[in-house]
Amino acid sequence: MKVNGTPCRTIWSTADDTAVAIIDQTKLPHVFATLLLENMRDAERAIRDMQVRGAPLIGVTAAYGVALSMRDHASDAALQATCDKLLTSRPTAVNLRWAVEKMRLLLAPLPESERASAAWQEAARIADEDVAINASIGEHGCELINAMYLKKQAKVNILTHCNAGWLATVDWGTALAPIYKAFDAGIPLHVWVDETRPRNQGASLTAWELGQHGVPHTVISDNTGGHLMQHGMVDMVIVGTDRVTARGDVCNKIGTYLKALAAFDNGVPFYVALPTPTIDWTLQDGVKEIPIEERTAEEVTHISGLCDDGRVRSVRITPEYSHAANYGFDVTPARLVTSLVTERGVVKANAESMLVLMEKVAA
Amino acid sequence: MKVNGTPCRTIWSTADDTAVAIIDQTKLPHVFATLLLENMRDAERAIRDMQVRGAPLIGVTAAYGVALSMRDHASDAALQATCDKLLTSRPTAVNLRWAVEKMRLLLAPLPESERASAAWQEAARIADEDVAINASIGEHGCELINAMYLKKQAKVNILTHCNAGWLATVDWGTALAPIYKAFDAGIPLHVWVDETRPRNQGASLTAWELGQHGVPHTVISDNTGGHLMQHGMVDMVIVGTDRVTARGDVCNKIGTYLKALAAFDNGVPFYVALPTPTIDWTLQDGVKEIPIEERTAEEVTHISGLCDDGRVRSVRITPEYSHAANYGFDVTPARLVTSLVTERGVVKANAESMLVLMEKVAA
Repeated sequence: MKVNGTPCRTIWSTADDTAVAIIDQTKLPHVFATLLLENMRDAERAIRDMQVRGAPLIGVTAAYGVALSMRDHASDAALQATCDKLLTSRPTAVNLRWAVEKMRLLLAPLPESERASAAWQEAARIADEDVAINASIGEHGCELINAMYLKKQAKVNILTHCNAGWLATVDWGTALAPIYKAFDAGIPLHVWVDETRPRNQGASLTAWELGQHGVPHTVISDNTGGHLMQHGMVDMVIVGTDRVTARGDVCNKIGTYLKALAAFDNGVPFYVALPTPTIDWTLQDGVKEIPIEERTAEEVTHISGLCDDGRVRSVRITPEYSHAANYGFDVTPARLVTSLVTERGVVKANAESMLVLMEKVAA
Repeated sequence: MKVNGTPCRTIWSTADDTAVAIIDQTKLPHVFATLLLENMRDAERAIRDMQVRGAPLIGVTAAYGVALSMRDHASDAALQATCDKLLTSRPTAVNLRWAVEKMRLLLAPLPESERASAAWQEAARIADEDVAINASIGEHGCELINAMYLKKQAKVNILTHCNAGWLATVDWGTALAPIYKAFDAGIPLHVWVDETRPRNQGASLTAWELGQHGVPHTVISDNTGGHLMQHGMVDMVIVGTDRVTARGDVCNKIGTYLKALAAFDNGVPFYVALPTPTIDWTLQDGVKEIPIEERTAEEVTHISGLCDDGRVRSVRITPEYSHAANYGFDVTPARLVTSLVTERGVVKANAESMLVLMEKVAA
């Protein structure tokens, strides 16, 4: 999508193909800075320090990390060491593991002399594949927005939580892909952006990328969505997800469940956008079966932002003696989800309807 | 309740009765500072600048403001000017209007020479009356906590939103009164404190006052309560309210409705603590009839806290170009409320049950 009026991906190879560039997402929304990744250590650091984040983007960055490494040393030992090192950079990231394994399986059988160029091509292919998947999610979701517009004959108000935008992928995003497609198609719309405490991915990333692309939006505290829905100010909710069970329970950023309850209570459609590999077919009851990551309390007790002296600073907002707890995700039961929006189409969030997606994967 | 181990109210007269002292609540939780109000202007500024906040405390401060003014000038003109001035300090505060009117009606018929001492006595009486009402709310609510403890035979986990503690009243608080009574009675309990964006009254005020009194508590982002309830980590919710309709709809800090939905979805009791004058008998449908205040966007785009250089600073957390919206309150429909906890007892949140409260008021 656009930055300062120019189309941009979150990761791209330099003109001479000697390195890849990324956006340093830790500096957003206050500073737009790009970084060159010139070797595997750069890639590993970018993942570990969350300069790149979002499952698909982490995977692509890791794939390029392998490719950069093969240029320096393409031996079996180097390949193994590179993969091991990259896997430790964000231990729980499923896409990271998937991308590194994919690269290892592709490269291991090849002669050393072919590994560097094959790796580079494969990393680029994984990136392009991600873009295509998200563009397809966008097309399917855009139809839902357009249908709402045709029914309402007025601006469509969409609420989203956290950042499931192009910054979390290579381009388009998941939850935001339908919004970009609809906006580019000229459908009048406006996005309510949950700030998404404690890490504020909504206020910092979603607001930034929507603004850069020119999409009208308003940042709200996470407490606000229920009130807006009670007063007819939200026409639909679209969120992303980290993991969906075989029966359609949705694990996503903490607070998603509360918005789903409010949507259900007010008859507002609640859509979840995802690439089908996000579905974990081994799981059924998300509340019981999905372990929820507890993160550092400091994300609750402290917050970062731009001071009027131009410096980004962290401030403490709680008493020194107060404990804080920080659960990263929650699970929205399938009964509260209107539909899943995938690259293969829109399906109901229940085991039977979702089988279509599995069959297509198997085919 | 206690500060640094010593019992404290939010407003008290000095030993020689020449002035009243308050806690400067704008400096909490980082600095505990008290301020002397020596004349009407001091009282008016304390209300306007939110050094005192919370309906009951604003009312008492205004009453003392009238009393301080009468010492300087007790003429009819001075009385009228004082009342007019105080009423403009927080134009929408219902308790402020009530307290100022009460003082005016009491003082107007008196000879000028008696006004100063009568005003001082009346202000003290209003303060004591507030303490008695909240202590009574506390006793009734404590029975609910004790019943939960007897049933569970383990620590009772209570979630609260915003600050309805002693800092918002003269002592005890409303939602926190039952918690202090139960804690003082030795019932094992723990409080989940919603930080309550955008103004963070939970993280700054509720956490501070619970901690000062020694009550175990944990600060959480407002997104977290649903997840906790899904996992049996909340035994009851207790919140305060700004306005309750005749059929039991509850207007309270934005986000309360989302917690009520989650409590209902998980079978967790949802209690609202209030003095009976909070009930507006002229209203029925809270969602339709109660206008919701929109506050400045800066409360969403900026946040204040303590820097590691020891200074309290405001930081911006959104892109410069992003709009923000800031609705101060929402309405929780009565169907989601388990009971209302008042100084006159615990009643169901419906028109018929609530009549008992009106009859008692009328008696």
